[in-house]
Amino acid sequence: MKILRVGPPGREKPAVLDSSGNMRDVSDLVDDWDGLALSDAVFAQLRKVDLATLPMLPAASRIGPCVADVGKFICIGLNYADHAAETGAEVPAEPVVFFKATSAICGPNDNLEIPRKSEKTDWEVELGIVIGKHTKYVSEEDAMDHIAGYCVVHDVSERAFQLEGTGQWVKGKSADTFGPIGPWLVTRDEITDPQNLTMWLDVNGEAMQRGSTSTMIFGVAHIVSYLSQFMSLQPGDVISTGTPPGVGLSRTPPLYLKAGDTVTLGIQGLGDQRQVCINA
Amino acid sequence: MKILRVGPPGREKPAVLDSSGNMRDVSDLVDDWDGLALSDAVFAQLRKVDLATLPMLPAASRIGPCVADVGKFICIGLNYADHAAETGAEVPAEPVVFFKATSAICGPNDNLEIPRKSEKTDWEVELGIVIGKHTKYVSEEDAMDHIAGYCVVHDVSERAFQLEGTGQWVKGKSADTFGPIGPWLVTRDEITDPQNLTMWLDVNGEAMQRGSTSTMIFGVAHIVSYLSQFMSLQPGDVISTGTPPGVGLSRTPPLYLKAGDTVTLGIQGLGDQRQVCINA
Repeated sequence: MKILRVGPPGREKPAVLDSSGNMRDVSDLVDDWDGLALSDAVFAQLRKVDLATLPMLPAASRIGPCVADVGKFICIGLNYADHAAETGAEVPAEPVVFFKATSAICGPNDNLEIPRKSEKTDWEVELGIVIGKHTKYVSEEDAMDHIAGYCVVHDVSERAFQLEGTGQWVKGKSADTFGPIGPWLVTRDEITDPQNLTMWLDVNGEAMQRGSTSTMIFGVAHIVSYLSQFMSLQPGDVISTGTPPGVGLSRTPPLYLKAGDTVTLGIQGLGDQRQVCINA
Repeated sequence: MKILRVGPPGREKPAVLDSSGNMRDVSDLVDDWDGLALSDAVFAQLRKVDLATLPMLPAASRIGPCVADVGKFICIGLNYADHAAETGAEVPAEPVVFFKATSAICGPNDNLEIPRKSEKTDWEVELGIVIGKHTKYVSEEDAMDHIAGYCVVHDVSERAFQLEGTGQWVKGKSADTFGPIGPWLVTRDEITDPQNLTMWLDVNGEAMQRGSTSTMIFGVAHIVSYLSQFMSLQPGDVISTGTPPGVGLSRTPPLYLKAGDTVTLGIQGLGDQRQVCINA
């Protein structure tokens, strides 16, 4: 099932994509696609509904972030062998964990704001995991049962804010619009192998990132289990699992986003995003 | 005004402390003390109410975290000149920003869980800022108007998870119960000078931290303005502003918390906390 949220920012309605790709309004059945609703029980109930009987939302509607009220937006850094190589970093011995602000989350096709004083706004296409169950000290064997589904995440990053100032990466990862998620959450039953999905990102139509989740250093089950040793995870938490090669920082010379640029990206089976860059 | 939340975890009622220190139930006037309610307008309305007419909550009730639905839990590291000196770190040129998981937040007197495999769980008494207005690119001059009030934060930290593994500090800052906040939020009108508050922390009745917000390197107004250049802040966001000297890591030999220990802490004008340590 592909679930999404449709409407103006802050007033999105919960929806489900039908087999023809139409957006069906499920707001009579679900309050919103937040942590409370992202459960196997709710998914099972919805699968019994004939989607053709539900109101169709206009195809031109804005798509919002596919999860509402995200509690934590957790990221894994340097998690692709080929990306670690391009940045000159050593392959990490354990997952590199950092956070993005949940206020950075936006719809998949919203404008991307270049922060004031930014000269190094960069792109990163990533596979997002959405948690579906309370998760604490979970084993790698049981971890997959705690996942509601997957989505595309654009982990937008300001490299000077992230790497050149004092302190931790979060400062370069958290500006408004730095976290487009969606277009939809694909429930985990539809993604038979999350470690074999092709992923891509273009800037102004030119290929920048080409990769596959098959080159992840730490896979999805390991990441969920590992994180749960350090913090509890709640339904609706989003974990972004790292980016394949081709970021702007690693190009010679480096290349960064500027107002007017268009970024398009996607992951096999999870849909596409498109952002136009504007100045904040 | 001193606002607080009273009741079992997840079912707290919003309350206000009256002049005799009784907890008055304001749930007929306010849904909860979340970002929506933390506004000067709501505070002004409540000040007109005769608190003696409101139901009194039993004095023995549990006190929950003083803010509900915290969106971001932001911390400033190494922000006291005397604490930076004791850790051997240089005084930072700009604020060191990191995040704690919002799922770490708990009531001020809840049990403190020592994480599994932890050997270095440490304490940090800190002044917390609670945001009351949407804040983005705000100047230092205007920053104080964006603050709803202040509270005590205990920034519990696992030093091995924070400093010895791969990656960023967040891993050692985010376990469940690592973020007691409260007992109450004191509205900013009652704290005439947030840069002149004494603060203290004891373990098993023995003095560990003694300090004052007067030795902060970056003050409250600077921190709010600085953060707002990198991310937007929303009402209900909590910013913990760093700790004075006396943490367990800096003692010779180092001293860490174990099950059975009792931690007590407080800040002048903001109330006290008390946690008993248990194993997770």
